[in-house]
Amino acid sequence: MFRPLLTLTGGLIAALAVSAAQAKPLTQEDLSVAEVLRDRALESSDAYSIVESLTVEVGPRPAGSEGDRRAVAWAQEKMKALGFDRVYTEQIEVPRWNRGHAHARVVAPFPQPLVVTSLGYSVGTPEGGLTAEIVEFADVEALIKAPARKVKGKIAFINKRMERARTGEGYGPAVGGRSKGMRAAAEKGAAALLIRSVGTDSDRFAHTGMMSINGVEGPVPALALSAPDANLLEAMLKRGKPVQVQLDVHNQHLEDGPSFNVIGEITGREKPEEVMIIGAHLDSWDESTGALDDGAGVAIVMETARLIAELPQRPRRTLRVVLYGAEEIGLVGAKQYVEAHRSELDNILAVSESDFGAGKIWRFDTRLPESKFAIADQMMQLLAPLGIERGNNKSSGGPDSSVFVAQGVPAFGLYQDGSDYFDYHHTPNDTLDKVDPKILQQNVAAWVVMSFLTVEMEGDLGRIPTDN
Amino acid sequence: MFRPLLTLTGGLIAALAVSAAQAKPLTQEDLSVAEVLRDRALESSDAYSIVESLTVEVGPRPAGSEGDRRAVAWAQEKMKALGFDRVYTEQIEVPRWNRGHAHARVVAPFPQPLVVTSLGYSVGTPEGGLTAEIVEFADVEALIKAPARKVKGKIAFINKRMERARTGEGYGPAVGGRSKGMRAAAEKGAAALLIRSVGTDSDRFAHTGMMSINGVEGPVPALALSAPDANLLEAMLKRGKPVQVQLDVHNQHLEDGPSFNVIGEITGREKPEEVMIIGAHLDSWDESTGALDDGAGVAIVMETARLIAELPQRPRRTLRVVLYGAEEIGLVGAKQYVEAHRSELDNILAVSESDFGAGKIWRFDTRLPESKFAIADQMMQLLAPLGIERGNNKSSGGPDSSVFVAQGVPAFGLYQDGSDYFDYHHTPNDTLDKVDPKILQQNVAAWVVMSFLTVEMEGDLGRIPTDN
Repeated sequence: MFRPLLTLTGGLIAALAVSAAQAKPLTQEDLSVAEVLRDRALESSDAYSIVESLTVEVGPRPAGSEGDRRAVAWAQEKMKALGFDRVYTEQIEVPRWNRGHAHARVVAPFPQPLVVTSLGYSVGTPEGGLTAEIVEFADVEALIKAPARKVKGKIAFINKRMERARTGEGYGPAVGGRSKGMRAAAEKGAAALLIRSVGTDSDRFAHTGMMSINGVEGPVPALALSAPDANLLEAMLKRGKPVQVQLDVHNQHLEDGPSFNVIGEITGREKPEEVMIIGAHLDSWDESTGALDDGAGVAIVMETARLIAELPQRPRRTLRVVLYGAEEIGLVGAKQYVEAHRSELDNILAVSESDFGAGKIWRFDTRLPESKFAIADQMMQLLAPLGIERGNNKSSGGPDSSVFVAQGVPAFGLYQDGSDYFDYHHTPNDTLDKVDPKILQQNVAAWVVMSFLTVEMEGDLGRIPTDN
Repeated sequence: MFRPLLTLTGGLIAALAVSAAQAKPLTQEDLSVAEVLRDRALESSDAYSIVESLTVEVGPRPAGSEGDRRAVAWAQEKMKALGFDRVYTEQIEVPRWNRGHAHARVVAPFPQPLVVTSLGYSVGTPEGGLTAEIVEFADVEALIKAPARKVKGKIAFINKRMERARTGEGYGPAVGGRSKGMRAAAEKGAAALLIRSVGTDSDRFAHTGMMSINGVEGPVPALALSAPDANLLEAMLKRGKPVQVQLDVHNQHLEDGPSFNVIGEITGREKPEEVMIIGAHLDSWDESTGALDDGAGVAIVMETARLIAELPQRPRRTLRVVLYGAEEIGLVGAKQYVEAHRSELDNILAVSESDFGAGKIWRFDTRLPESKFAIADQMMQLLAPLGIERGNNKSSGGPDSSVFVAQGVPAFGLYQDGSDYFDYHHTPNDTLDKVDPKILQQNVAAWVVMSFLTVEMEGDLGRIPTDN
C-alpha cells in the first residue's frame, strides 16, 4: 500500500488542474470587446428583421422544394447584404416528398371528423381511402410487443402523451411513436398508423415530423392526430364499442433532388483556416413558415456574425455560419457536410447550433476537454448577467452539430427555455408571432459572446472523445 | 318653484323604493334550499359529463345537418335520462349550407399558402378559382366609404384587430367586417372578401361565423384569415408591391330543411303554466365539437334542471330548458320559438341563456323592473360566496334570450369571464379540453341558485319596457 505516494500524485494532479483553470485563454481586451458586442446585441432589432424577412418573403421551405430553393437564394442575398466576406453554397442530395391531403373521420360508433396530418414521407391510402378498426397502444413499445394478429388489418393508434419541460426532455420518451411506429405497424400488417401528436399543446394542430422509412417493406399511411382529437378517440374507445376510422390520404414521393447548405464567413485575420462553425437549419416543415424551427436560429447566427463583422478588425480566426439543408428529414445537410469536409475537421475549433426555438437562453452547456473549461468559465463572466447559468459538459451542440461532435469536434450549447417549444413544433402554428423580439436580443447577446471569444482566443479547444 | 314639494315627492319615492327593497320575495326556507342546491352543484361532475357526452358522441352539429339531427336525438334522450318531466321538440325551418374546401395562397410577390376558412354561407369561387390583387381596409367602415373603382375586381381585405376583454366587449367593434363586409364588397364589385379573423388568439385558426346575406345581389366568396396569416398579408403589403392572392373555394347551398328546438321541463307544483326559460343553443359551427359554443351552456342548464328535479318536491312553477336550434346562423330557433309562443309570453317569468363559453361567472346582471331588484339582492346572498358581484340591469339574457327581452320578458345574466373565449370562438379549436370541470361546477352552482329561486319565489318579475 503506497498511500503517501498516491496522495502525493493526487495532489499533483489537483495542482495541475488548478493551474490549467488559472491559465486564462482570454485576455481582458477580448472580454471587453465581447462585452461591447453583447450590449450592442441587446439594442439591435436586426435578428428579428431577419426572421421576419425569412418568414414573410420565403415562408415554408421543405427540403428540395420550390420554397427551399427560394430560401437558399434569400440566405445568400441576406448574408451578402449583412457584410459577410464570403458567401457560397454546397449542394446536397435530398429525398423529396409532397404532402397532399389527409382526411380522417370516425365512421362508427360516433361519426365525426378528426384533425390529422401525414407524418413526413408517409405513403397515401389506396384510392378511395380505407376504413378499419382502431387498436390502441400506450406507446410504441407496446405496439412492438403486440402479437401481429392483434394489429393485422387495423389502424394502430399510439396514444402516448408528451410531458412539458423547460429542457424539452419530454420529447425523447414520446417521439418513438413517430419515428418507429410506422415500421412496427407495417411489420405487423396494420392498415395504417395513427399517433397522438408529439407535442405539449392542447390545440387542434397535428404535429408532423420525420419517421424511419428506410428498408420498410410495405409502408403504411402514418398520421398524427391533434391532442384534442387523440382525446376524442380515447374517449370513444373507453365506451367499449369498436371504433371505425376512415382515412383518405394522398402524398407524393418524388425523385431525389438538390438542396444546399448555405455558408457565409467572416474571415479570420490571423488563422483564416481555423474556424468556428455556428449554425442553424434553413429548411422547415411544409405546413408553417418555420419561425421557431428554425427561422429564429437562422436569424440568431446571422446576426451574431454581422455584429462581429462590424468590428474594426476581423477576429483572429474564421467564423463560419452554416445554414444546413434538410435537417428535418434526418440531418441530411450536416451529414453530407461532415462527409465532404472530413479532412478539414481538425481545423474546426468548435460547433454550435441554434435549433430550439426562440426562448430565453438560461443555461450554457459545453462539450470540451476538461483542460479547456477555463474558457467557458471566462465566457460565463459575460453570460451570467444575461441570466444564464453554467450547465453541464454533455452538450450535443444542437442536432446538426451532433454530427461533428461524434467526430471529436468540441461544442457549445446555449440552452433556450423550451417550455412552449413543443406547443408549436412541426405544426402550422409555428409562425412569426411566436418570436419575442426582446428575447431574441438576449439570444444574440449570448451567441455573440460565445462566438467572438472562441474565434478570438489564444490557443484552441482540443478534441473530445468520439462516440466510437 | 315648488322645491319643498319636489323634495317631499322625491323623499316619498325613495321611501317606497326602500319599502320595495325590504319586501323580500324569497323566504328563508327558499334560500336554504337554494344553498343546498348550490353546494351540491359544487360537488357534482355531471355537467362535465354532459358536455363530454355531447362532444364525443355527437361532435359538430351545424343547423340542419346530420350532426344536428343526432344532437337533437341525443338531447331528448339525455333529458329523459336526467329525470325531466316532459321532453319534446318543436320543429323549425333553417337554411342549410355545406362547407367545402377553402384554399388560399399568395402568388406574388412572395408565394406561400394562407390559412383561411369560409364565413358561414359564403359562395364558392368560379371553377378553377380566382386570382386578384389585395386591397386593404382598416375596418368595414373604410370599405363602405371606399369608391367602387378602388375595390372593383380586387380582393377586399379588412384588417381589423379585436381587443381582448373579460366582458368580450372587443367583439362588437370587430365583428362588422364579418357581418357586413361581404355585402359591401359585393356592392363595389370586389372579387372576394378576406377578413382578419374576429378573434383574440394568435393561432393559425381562422374564425368562421355568420354574415348578412339576405338580399345581397351577386354575393362574392367571403373568407377569414387566421391572425398569423393576416399578419403575413399585412407584412407583405407594407413592402409596397402589389400582392396577388389566389382563392379556390367550394361550398354548397342546400334547400331549407328542418331543425328543432329541444325542450325539457321540470313541471311546477302550483303554477305549472308559469315558466322560467333557461337556455343554451344546441347547434354549433361545423369545424369543431362546439364544447365552449355552446356545449358548456347545454351542460350547465341541463344540470341545473337535474339538480332541481332531484329535490323532494317540484318547485312552485315550471322550469323549462330550451336548447335552441340554429342560433349560430341568426337566432333562428329563438325567433321561431317566440313567434310560435307569442300568446304565452306573459307566462314567461324570465329568461336566461348560457352562451359565452365555460369561464368563471363573475357578475350577475339583470333586466328587471326596478321594483323587482329585491329578488336579485336576495340571490346575491348566495352568489357572492361564489365570487360573483352584482352587475347592471342591462342584461340581454344571452343571444337567444334577447329575442324574448325585446318582447318585455325579464332576464337574468350570469356573466362568465370571457377573457379567452374569443381565442377559440368559431374555430376548430373549440374542443372539450378548453372546459375546466371545476369552473363548470361554479357555473352550475350560480345557475341553480338563480333558477330555483325564480321558479320558487312568491309573486312574479313583472314586465320590462320593450324595444319599441
